Amino acid sequence: MSRANDPGLQSWISVPEESDFPIQNLPFGIFQTDGLSPRVGVAIGDQVLDLAALNRDGFLTAFDLPDSILENQYLNDFIKLGKDKTSAVREHLSDLLQEENAVLRDAPDAVNKYFHLQASVQMLLPVQPGDYTDFYSSEVHATNIGRMFRPDNPLMPNWKYIPVGYHGRSSTIIVSGEHFHRPKGQILEKDGEPPVFRASTQLDFELETAFITFDGPAMGQSITTSEAEQYIFGMVLFNDWSARDIQRWEYVPLGPFLAKNFASSISPWVVTLDALQPFYCEGPVQDPPVLDYLRFNGPKNIDISLEVGIIPEGNEETTVCHSNFKYMYWNINQQLAHQTVNGCLVRAGDMYGSGTISAPAEDGYGSMMELTWRGQNPLTMKDGSTRKFIEDGDTVVIRGWCERNGIRVGFGEVSSKVLPAI
Amino acid sequence: MSRANDPGLQSWISVPEESDFPIQNLPFGIFQTDGLSPRVGVAIGDQVLDLAALNRDGFLTAFDLPDSILENQYLNDFIKLGKDKTSAVREHLSDLLQEENAVLRDAPDAVNKYFHLQASVQMLLPVQPGDYTDFYSSEVHATNIGRMFRPDNPLMPNWKYIPVGYHGRSSTIIVSGEHFHRPKGQILEKDGEPPVFRASTQLDFELETAFITFDGPAMGQSITTSEAEQYIFGMVLFNDWSARDIQRWEYVPLGPFLAKNFASSISPWVVTLDALQPFYCEGPVQDPPVLDYLRFNGPKNIDISLEVGIIPEGNEETTVCHSNFKYMYWNINQQLAHQTVNGCLVRAGDMYGSGTISAPAEDGYGSMMELTWRGQNPLTMKDGSTRKFIEDGDTVVIRGWCERNGIRVGFGEVSSKVLPAI
Repeated sequence: MSRANDPGLQSWISVPEESDFPIQNLPFGIFQTDGLSPRVGVAIGDQVLDLAALNRDGFLTAFDLPDSILENQYLNDFIKLGKDKTSAVREHLSDLLQEENAVLRDAPDAVNKYFHLQASVQMLLPVQPGDYTDFYSSEVHATNIGRMFRPDNPLMPNWKYIPVGYHGRSSTIIVSGEHFHRPKGQILEKDGEPPVFRASTQLDFELETAFITFDGPAMGQSITTSEAEQYIFGMVLFNDWSARDIQRWEYVPLGPFLAKNFASSISPWVVTLDALQPFYCEGPVQDPPVLDYLRFNGPKNIDISLEVGIIPEGNEETTVCHSNFKYMYWNINQQLAHQTVNGCLVRAGDMYGSGTISAPAEDGYGSMMELTWRGQNPLTMKDGSTRKFIEDGDTVVIRGWCERNGIRVGFGEVSSKVLPAI
Repeated sequence: MSRANDPGLQSWISVPEESDFPIQNLPFGIFQTDGLSPRVGVAIGDQVLDLAALNRDGFLTAFDLPDSILENQYLNDFIKLGKDKTSAVREHLSDLLQEENAVLRDAPDAVNKYFHLQASVQMLLPVQPGDYTDFYSSEVHATNIGRMFRPDNPLMPNWKYIPVGYHGRSSTIIVSGEHFHRPKGQILEKDGEPPVFRASTQLDFELETAFITFDGPAMGQSITTSEAEQYIFGMVLFNDWSARDIQRWEYVPLGPFLAKNFASSISPWVVTLDALQPFYCEGPVQDPPVLDYLRFNGPKNIDISLEVGIIPEGNEETTVCHSNFKYMYWNINQQLAHQTVNGCLVRAGDMYGSGTISAPAEDGYGSMMELTWRGQNPLTMKDGSTRKFIEDGDTVVIRGWCERNGIRVGFGEVSSKVLPAI
């Protein structure tokens, strides 16, 4: 296990109880302030550690990092350094932040020079994804959706052989706190009649996580399940916004397009796969057996508690879903092995959504489509209003965290508000 | 009409007869030589004009272009300048190259300093696409494919309402001359039995073009059909390589994934939409009428002759398809309007494939799947060998050109060889 994951570690930066960002986490993100251009930061407690400033002042000399990698609008160049180097940077930061280490702690004016309150900075989109794939890897979700449309045969015959996925749109991935307008599109209101063009009335969230890759091997080469973790930098929370009414009419035969590509929201802090190692767990038994290239050894699911809340405009939040990433049928190692088995090139900063993460219990479904069963059973908010789908002015918040041995390693949140259609 | 399109223009650079690159074309690309780093070039006759060198020596001062835009690995930064500026650069180059203009012609050592034989340079991928969409806009193609799988109802009910499209993989777009390995993947050999993992035996080309966009309006805004041409920089030839056996098993319900994302090949010269204006023509009547946001005025199809050849290793080329872009049911203005009608963001350098361009005649089908009707009617090559699909060692070449009033504006070619599976 990484030294930086030791549950006994304490930092000289005080970390509030229930913080997602103890010294055992140290996720990477991009932040800016009124006075500072975009740069790489690391979260610790309720602070952001400014890596660009640390580097300029010689606290990262062992890594020989050009300033431009850390004074950058995106993490892509940092991720391009590869697993060995980025892991070593996290270990070094862990050392610098440990309570008994005086190097940074006792440097003159250290807290003022290198730390910012998270509440005082603006977090930006952490990566510029070259490509973004969305998988469909929760058996509960795939079965639920299948049951609505094909009650006798909910799972497609390929589902237990293939970690089914499709390509999404990179240009409309936004960071938590950015809002978007309700999409308009073609909707078939009555079978046999022409579709109409109007705003979607079935706007939905999808509770997902996403992993972000390092540069892969050359095009034509594959990544095996046992190599996969060497090519995964970290993970974020992901809300794959979906317009169900647009999707239903457009998706045959080539898959979802305008129903998904208007916006996808991610959390700003990339939690490294290193920090998630202590939370690995067994996944479901895969039966029928998977093909050889999808076999793997050891526990490769991850125990990440997830919840979704809806905040109607000006009202308090209602939690509508409790789920967990551990329920996924296909794990991230299998997803990456599948993505590359045909030689598909993987690049630093590429993003791979998990697919909606639905838990078996009915309050564990990861979309309104499932929670209200296509709108048949509306949810009641704390303010008394009801929801079949997401309304204008609603903010949807996803939170995620791991907890073991008294250590909580969290993702923070991804939160976006739905503005009325233009 | 643009001054640069005047069919009477002649250049002081001699242009061979049947060249795709007369002074009326002036397509943009990225080239390098042993001595020169990657940079923007323009094709004229069998020469490449070095825009970076021209700019450095003051021939483009009116445009105030930083050297870094032209000494660049991609055209993206140049395209970011927007339509007004890139069109003006093309007009200016047209002026400089006209036979009566002495400014560049009589500059000392001009030919040596600013021109390179195309045969002596290496052409690189012209753009780094942030996103790549593939449409499915040929009625002949969609009907052919539909007939194979659903003889009674070949066209899906949404097809004449929606310019159906899906997102593809940007990371594996390669330039003409780059080769790739035959993909491996899951293939269902017998219904009801588990799939097997092996190399595809149904590797196919798809004859397409692709357009490349300028930066669009802000996320949330749409581009109308009448605005679309302001947001399209130019077009290339596109070979959307496809593994039919992998596709058949994986594509339900979320569309093609590993069957397509192993490689897509494009031609190196981006022919501007400006240069294509003289070749606009009427498209097919769209019946039933399209929704308002897809209506358009004037002729918006483009008369581009297309052909596909197969070159078995060490043998001569056999032309297997003659088609034309004018047959497309949905035009590029409609495709871009559809792509953005939900607010989807469009960025400089994004790429939009047309979908397979099949002409009505049987030798006009744009894929082996159609030409051999799923392999039932193999094609015979000039060397006597036959093809159901594409074999290892085969090179597939797509060529495209417009011709009117004695002027030929061409794309050159896109050519890739299939290497054996790894």
